[in-house]
Amino acid sequence: MKLKGENIIGFKSSAKGTKTIQAFIPAKNEYFPDRFTQATTEELDTAIALANKAFPEYNALSYEMRAQFLDAIADEIVALGDVLVERCAAESGLAVGRIIGERGRTCGQLKMFAELLRTGWWVDARIDKAKPDRQPIAKSDIRRMLIPIGPVAVFGASNFPLAFSTAGGDTASALAAGCPVIVKAHSSHLGTNEMISSAIIKAAQKTGMPEGVFSSVYLSHEEVIKLVQNPVIKAVGFTGSREVGMRLFNAAVSRPDPIPIYAEMSSVNPVILLEGALLDNGQKIAKELTASIALGAGQFCTNPGLVLMVENETGKKFLEDFAIQMSATIPATMLNKNIFKAYIDGVKYLQDAPEVALLGKASTEAMDEKLEAQPIVHTIRAADFLSNKLFSTETFGPASLVVLCKDNAELGEVLHSFEGQLTATVHATIADELAMKSLISIITQKVGRIIFGGYPTGVEVCHSMQHGGPFPATTDSRSTSVGTASIYRFVRPIAYQDFPDHLLPDPLKNDNPLKLFRLVDGNWTSEKI
Amino acid sequence: MKLKGENIIGFKSSAKGTKTIQAFIPAKNEYFPDRFTQATTEELDTAIALANKAFPEYNALSYEMRAQFLDAIADEIVALGDVLVERCAAESGLAVGRIIGERGRTCGQLKMFAELLRTGWWVDARIDKAKPDRQPIAKSDIRRMLIPIGPVAVFGASNFPLAFSTAGGDTASALAAGCPVIVKAHSSHLGTNEMISSAIIKAAQKTGMPEGVFSSVYLSHEEVIKLVQNPVIKAVGFTGSREVGMRLFNAAVSRPDPIPIYAEMSSVNPVILLEGALLDNGQKIAKELTASIALGAGQFCTNPGLVLMVENETGKKFLEDFAIQMSATIPATMLNKNIFKAYIDGVKYLQDAPEVALLGKASTEAMDEKLEAQPIVHTIRAADFLSNKLFSTETFGPASLVVLCKDNAELGEVLHSFEGQLTATVHATIADELAMKSLISIITQKVGRIIFGGYPTGVEVCHSMQHGGPFPATTDSRSTSVGTASIYRFVRPIAYQDFPDHLLPDPLKNDNPLKLFRLVDGNWTSEKI
Repeated sequence: MKLKGENIIGFKSSAKGTKTIQAFIPAKNEYFPDRFTQATTEELDTAIALANKAFPEYNALSYEMRAQFLDAIADEIVALGDVLVERCAAESGLAVGRIIGERGRTCGQLKMFAELLRTGWWVDARIDKAKPDRQPIAKSDIRRMLIPIGPVAVFGASNFPLAFSTAGGDTASALAAGCPVIVKAHSSHLGTNEMISSAIIKAAQKTGMPEGVFSSVYLSHEEVIKLVQNPVIKAVGFTGSREVGMRLFNAAVSRPDPIPIYAEMSSVNPVILLEGALLDNGQKIAKELTASIALGAGQFCTNPGLVLMVENETGKKFLEDFAIQMSATIPATMLNKNIFKAYIDGVKYLQDAPEVALLGKASTEAMDEKLEAQPIVHTIRAADFLSNKLFSTETFGPASLVVLCKDNAELGEVLHSFEGQLTATVHATIADELAMKSLISIITQKVGRIIFGGYPTGVEVCHSMQHGGPFPATTDSRSTSVGTASIYRFVRPIAYQDFPDHLLPDPLKNDNPLKLFRLVDGNWTSEKI
Repeated sequence: MKLKGENIIGFKSSAKGTKTIQAFIPAKNEYFPDRFTQATTEELDTAIALANKAFPEYNALSYEMRAQFLDAIADEIVALGDVLVERCAAESGLAVGRIIGERGRTCGQLKMFAELLRTGWWVDARIDKAKPDRQPIAKSDIRRMLIPIGPVAVFGASNFPLAFSTAGGDTASALAAGCPVIVKAHSSHLGTNEMISSAIIKAAQKTGMPEGVFSSVYLSHEEVIKLVQNPVIKAVGFTGSREVGMRLFNAAVSRPDPIPIYAEMSSVNPVILLEGALLDNGQKIAKELTASIALGAGQFCTNPGLVLMVENETGKKFLEDFAIQMSATIPATMLNKNIFKAYIDGVKYLQDAPEVALLGKASTEAMDEKLEAQPIVHTIRAADFLSNKLFSTETFGPASLVVLCKDNAELGEVLHSFEGQLTATVHATIADELAMKSLISIITQKVGRIIFGGYPTGVEVCHSMQHGGPFPATTDSRSTSVGTASIYRFVRPIAYQDFPDHLLPDPLKNDNPLKLFRLVDGNWTSEKI
């Protein structure tokens, strides 16, 4: 597939600008020859105007039509074939097998939202019937449902070039909700973005979607702020660094009309190892935890960056096993130069800190010229950990820090000191139950997902997933970016009072044509009115 | 009832400060003799610390226990008897009958949330069962529900001294959600606040709630910001002016850890009168619209501040009727000096504008010494209206501005120019259907509630109500401040992965002890697992 290197503005390719950027091959530390032209302000404005125009048209389509669009995107992505997989693997430094798996997840997500649209219950339809005879005043007929919030700006992540990017969870959930999407292409996978964007446009045209329902643009830092602050844009989805996330957050909330922004930014995902679990399963945990830390060069927002345990005989035995396991890991290429540099700096900070000791690392040296990260684990005493906030910040990559506590009470103190997290994990047995209960009570206030006896990496895409936690894990703990519940980020409620039946949207009509579960006078029912 | 004039910090009265404020009697334009002592920073910190301590305890109680607390608050408020009604009417300038009605609504809201807690479905319980044999990787058991977000700061409104204040919707929904509440007492009804706060504390003690579940403090402007920015506070509810709302919004989003803020601020609630409706019902509409404008001295966030119509023969006839109806209205005392002054200034701005003409006003002159507002309606041509944003800002009180349009297309242009609104209202008949459909499509993007053939004042408290709209109606269009759905402002989701059944919260346990409707593997059911 020949890449054009152009922005996709509505249904057209467009490259009116003069500034170009190049895609990078991290494993070779060199650039692809092709160039991608950044959008001009005029092109960005055109994309936004098209989204604005498309919004009421797109919104007026039936849920079934939207579902067909999402299904078609999945089909067009699969139809791209190997050329997508190869380009995506080369741009991201990720293995072909991983990319194939991620493509499956991405298409699965799109089809999951199509299925959700067909069920219809997600609109939370509620009806309170009129009571004209009520005293002292008549009761009106009130009906309420969720409607799309408006055009959405999506900023994909580098670490999931498919599942969290151009046609990833944010785009899928926004399109499902009824919101046109403008994607700011990630510089780490420019070719992938162009292929996926073309697939989306093909799907849009095949299924009769209005032009403007999707655009994809390459943007400078200044243009990014213009996108977030444009009055047409009604919400923002972002996954990436805390620094960029906060820049976008501040842009969104300082608009004359502030808008919701869902920025997923930073999480160290503490893993708590209680003594009973280490006694019973220490070796197994050492092996599996190591695998979770090293998986995908540790480039997951759910990577276990901190391990909490009590420093006793059982703990010491575990640490020996852990060190051995870590030595068997192998270095892997990181996503891009910035992430590689940040990892090197983060690890160096730990290495230079006198209170930090090396526990174990990959026995093979990492090759800088291939942007490889060397998996590594350090230890620190809880008292030292608590004295410096920097030890609890995320080092994105296959590094983890073991916090050694005197006892479970001190472990609780460490948990209390944390900022918000995407996840926390507890390994425990019946013997640990008392300590565990009090620790879980602390954890519950800090995280979006608690895992028992497993590992935080591997985020199941389902109705029950919560991928999002208190700040700085995300800027909006009320939301998830994975699973069907992520559609709620891009909708808002509207109520219709005393409306003629034929003017109501289908979910609220008397005869319930979509056969939805609705809350009618306080009871959930799929009956007609 | 002898008022103490002290803050209520946890279960104790406290007045360590030196600065006092006095309650005001608007109809007499004079102060009550009693003084209320502002909280010191230390007292505020104590209230916050108690809320923080109470949070996990309160959260651990069963929904039934919380429901009993809410029921008990309603009972204690009723038990306050006439002394509450009299004080509240005197402080607010509102009629005794209105206050009695509002007390009923307030207690009704509390009992409605108690009922909601007992149904349990609001926690949105979702379960995706494990599939240990799934290829290529096993599927974990994931379960998700809503949990309280944490302690909440509530800023009540002056215009609903009961239903939107100390034990009003924000407090009721936050307490129902499981969040301790700190109320910043409104200076417009200090005595009312003390009585209601005492009722809440009595109820808390009778039903065994932890100290700190509720506090009520008098605060200076600086202390207010300290409250919003304290790390313990996890969300803010506010109803009031755009100026104060934005001050609190900026404080909330500029925290090191930004938090959700639900500020309901400003709405002009356009009423659109199409020709068919005016032909059929012009006189009736003139009468009813006048009543809606003048109701409660126009001091409702849903007051119809703008009327949109086409200037033709039918329209002219309606305006004559409207003017006659307006002359029959009577001035009424406003809530406080600031609101009175803002009304006088707002009306003067219109009177002085050369493009604005007087249509009609109360034939009785308002008495300034009683802080009375004179109901008044002006007219303006659409082209002039569109040329100056100030004409579309809210004048809080019984004033309305009729925007005269050349045709329905220009009426659509006027609608397009609006900021977000709590409500819009359409009067139309079959004859107007074509125009109406296109206007409703515009309105849908601007408002939280659309009323057909009625008036925006009178907000039904029910499951289907949406009281909240795009900015600046509220700072968060995804939320409502009225109705059971308002509980969603103060919760966030959490997922439990592979948890032992006995450690799961009741809503997610296998045997479904609360008999909830749950989404199990994609199907809503109340079955056990």
